Amino acid sequence: MRQTRGVRKIHVIGIGAGDPDQLTLQAVRALRSTDVFFLLDKGEVKSDLTRLRLDMLDAHLPAGSYRVVEARDPDRDRKAGGAAYSPAVGDWRSARAGIYQRLIAEELDEDGTGAFLVWGDPALYDSTLGILQEVLERGEVEFAYDVVPGISSVSALVARHRTGLNRVAGPVQITTGRRLAEGFPEGVDDVVVMLDAHQAFRRYADEDMDIYWGAYIGTPDEILVSGPLAEAGPRIERVRAQARERKGWIMDTYLLRRHPAKD
Amino acid sequence: MRQTRGVRKIHVIGIGAGDPDQLTLQAVRALRSTDVFFLLDKGEVKSDLTRLRLDMLDAHLPAGSYRVVEARDPDRDRKAGGAAYSPAVGDWRSARAGIYQRLIAEELDEDGTGAFLVWGDPALYDSTLGILQEVLERGEVEFAYDVVPGISSVSALVARHRTGLNRVAGPVQITTGRRLAEGFPEGVDDVVVMLDAHQAFRRYADEDMDIYWGAYIGTPDEILVSGPLAEAGPRIERVRAQARERKGWIMDTYLLRRHPAKD
Ligand SMILES: C[S@@+](CC[C@H](N)C(=O)[O-])C[C@H]1O[C@@H](n2cnc3c(N)ncnc32)[C@H](O)[C@@H]1O
Ligand SMILES: C[S@@+](CC[C@H](N)C(=O)[O-])C[C@H]1O[C@@H](n2cnc3c(N)ncnc32)[C@H](O)[C@@H]1O
Repeated sequence: MRQTRGVRKIHVIGIGAGDPDQLTLQAVRALRSTDVFFLLDKGEVKSDLTRLRLDMLDAHLPAGSYRVVEARDPDRDRKAGGAAYSPAVGDWRSARAGIYQRLIAEELDEDGTGAFLVWGDPALYDSTLGILQEVLERGEVEFAYDVVPGISSVSALVARHRTGLNRVAGPVQITTGRRLAEGFPEGVDDVVVMLDAHQAFRRYADEDMDIYWGAYIGTPDEILVSGPLAEAGPRIERVRAQARERKGWIMDTYLLRRHPAKD
Repeated sequence: MRQTRGVRKIHVIGIGAGDPDQLTLQAVRALRSTDVFFLLDKGEVKSDLTRLRLDMLDAHLPAGSYRVVEARDPDRDRKAGGAAYSPAVGDWRSARAGIYQRLIAEELDEDGTGAFLVWGDPALYDSTLGILQEVLERGEVEFAYDVVPGISSVSALVARHRTGLNRVAGPVQITTGRRLAEGFPEGVDDVVVMLDAHQAFRRYADEDMDIYWGAYIGTPDEILVSGPLAEAGPRIERVRAQARERKGWIMDTYLLRRHPAKD
């Protein structure tokens, strides 16, 4: 007879981009069915973002009904600290896969349910799904997993500005600051930019565009600025530098809307 | 002395793309602060999608605490029926603005709160925000409004397929079937296609792409198909035709992922 064993389960839960009320009912349900939460922290934004996750758990789960395991997420840009689960060798991605594998194998019972709480929507510029896939491919630990979509910072941005992502029947592209710095994407007039540490929008200050910008969207620190790029751009640069100075870190996203050629 | 009057309030609430559990806590809160829900129906999908909205209200609000006003949304492709608020003259957009204006002016007390329940995320291929803007610009009725972001069918699609929208540091474009039929968007290898009545993906059957397709995502009728386009494409065409035949209408979305040139 085949031995029956439990199967570890993992939820990858999108928790929204800052406002705890952006959790979906499905996410709350997933939180409630989780035994162990894996919190990966990334250095300076730690105190605020880890706190927000812990507060969410606190708000939705009876104390004592769950366990939290914190681990250090190896960061590409800094040396890993001495925390448990920090990577010893190997490249960044496989270091992360190693950490995730150990978390799942060592911290989760064979019939337990674990969860990763992903900022925004797990589908956008997040590596959790890729890493879990890699862990499965290594074949050393088995688990089933599902994904709970979340409100991304992109959705939150445009909601706060009360505008859409696309214009009537038009396309929209989501890209990074690095790519925008190389040139305005072809074939689109509406472009959302994430992960921009260098205000790549400055390059387009002479063009006929509007910008809808937001930082710390959905949190008490939220800042919104919008308007014609030539005028709003310099304002954003100032506000952004001040905010970054004050808090020590910043998360910002923006939509650039090029005025379409009249036709 | 200036006369103090109430200000009508409107919530534009993203309700997710099919699964009632995709409502956010913020959306539930907004539902609970609403006096009058405006339901615009669009013909054949009416029975199912209007029902889903009514069920959501039922699930989250005490009976008798709210009012529902149904109106016929003028459809570009069909003659308007004889329903109340159907457009008499003028083009489609201004016909809709006229209907929305009348709903707000006539069905909402001056200090009342109304809501439009928008499928998915109000930011994607939805005209509600544009119409409200137009109503305000007409200047005949005043109101304040806010937007509650929702889980889009795009987020729901990739969550069900447990994949991301973008690849590492890469861009993603969201576009329409009509545009995809004109050519594969430039500068991106990941393209989400909505509003595709003609399976525009067929044009790319010979190319090295994967497709992640979903219909009625989040509902009990959900269908998912994925795989290399050459193989999955014909399967999707079959499944789609059968489903459409069976239910009388279909909503489907897909991600095309072009294998990037090796570099
Ligand atoms: C690693 S990506 C993660 C995105 C996330 N998965 C999402 O769906 O929003 C981080 C980037 O998301 C954006 N971002 C995330 N949260 C934000 C917020 N609350 N306000 C502004 N931008 C935010 C910023 O562009 C930041 O550089
Ligand atoms: C007018 S657009 C509205 C999109 C909506 N605002 C959103 O955020 O998903 C309608 C298109 O959305 C997509 N769609 C909406 N709901 C869907 C679902 N449950 N399953 C698959 N596709 C869906 C289809 O591509 C459909 O043609």
